[in-house]
Amino acid sequence: MKISARNVLAGKIVDVKKGATTAHVRIDVGGTIVTASITNEAVDELALKPGMAASAVIKSSDVMVAVE
Amino acid sequence: MKISARNVLAGKIVDVKKGATTAHVRIDVGGTIVTASITNEAVDELALKPGMAASAVIKSSDVMVAVE
Amino acid sequence: MKISARNVLAGKIVDVKKGATTAHVRIDVGGTIVTASITNEAVDELALKPGMAASAVIKSSDVMVAVE
Amino acid sequence: MKISARNVLAGKIVDVKKGATTAHVRIDVGGTIVTASITNEAVDELALKPGMAASAVIKSSDVMVAVE
Amino acid sequence: MKISARNVLAGKIVDVKKGATTAHVRIDVGGTIVTASITNEAVDELALKPGMAASAVIKSSDVMVAVE
Amino acid sequence: MKISARNVLAGKIVDVKKGATTAHVRIDVGGTIVTASITNEAVDELALKPGMAASAVIKSSDVMVAVE
Repeated sequence: MKISARNVLAGKIVDVKKGATTAHVRIDVGGTIVTASITNEAVDELALKPGMAASAVIKSSDVMVAVE
Repeated sequence: MKISARNVLAGKIVDVKKGATTAHVRIDVGGTIVTASITNEAVDELALKPGMAASAVIKSSDVMVAVE
Repeated sequence: MKISARNVLAGKIVDVKKGATTAHVRIDVGGTIVTASITNEAVDELALKPGMAASAVIKSSDVMVAVE
Repeated sequence: MKISARNVLAGKIVDVKKGATTAHVRIDVGGTIVTASITNEAVDELALKPGMAASAVIKSSDVMVAVE
Repeated sequence: MKISARNVLAGKIVDVKKGATTAHVRIDVGGTIVTASITNEAVDELALKPGMAASAVIKSSDVMVAVE
Repeated sequence: MKISARNVLAGKIVDVKKGATTAHVRIDVGGTIVTASITNEAVDELALKPGMAASAVIKSSDVMVAVE
């Protein structure tokens, strides 16, 4: 599958924390930690766990820009 | 200002392309290009241009996870 | 690639309209038209055009519920 | 109320699962299940339950396109 | 129609600017200007124009919190 | 930090409710309550609590328009 989202940041999962319905997955992308908030169901279906190679995928319209 | 968004990825702007109302800003984050789709007004107000230090800011609920 | 987004709606592209930076792609999903607003670059990279099989992909946290 | 969101997909609720703060609502839209992640408060206020007619509402800028 | 989005901010439209595909609509909500980036099609379908009563509708998962 | 998001609505926090992973923060913005759904981690890091001055920050592409 190829997706229109412009940002596919390859890395490795370092942490998976499931809540009641929503899970937080942390991915190390070249030394920077990216946090994804996704459903528990997605965690189960993709069998996400620490150490797995995974990408953070972000649509461009969800990216803001900040300057000092 | 400190913001609740979990993902603030520091980098340098490499490209700014304004359209009719929407601009695309590309930020080099440690060798990975992150594209942000923002308003032309934001580009003007923050005076964004190539070479500037800037961060890509992304709310965790806008990050998906993909695996091969 | 497998993605955490819970909603992958298979269909066929019926219309692609590029703007200055942002394109609108309409996908017929079982008789319902779903509109996606994505970057022109994504349209070019995926070579999207009417008649192609394509899916609308939507993260659950971006879906609202309405009732009469 | 009429809303600017381009995608209003009519269907029927098949499942409502409340978590600690976030609920998952599944809507059958012409045979396809669409999952919405919304607040528990919204579930209560709209009195969402299985069997109810409901629509999944999605802003175009939150729809991605995927191809094989 | 009643919607799950928690934030429906009533106001009056003060400006509508259409681009090639994306429009910016500014709504005065109790003295604060809220900007919405929506499709040109939505502007046409709802016949949005300055002076009209309108609400800015925002899903809770799209709201961040900032402090000084 | 200055951010590209067009909507920064200043107010005061009136309620913070943490769930298993996701928290709901309510901000009074000039008499209107705005609800933000953010991570528990953000609540802790920013030490958000009722009575604090805080802003609701919303990207324009996440704002819809509704009319009667």
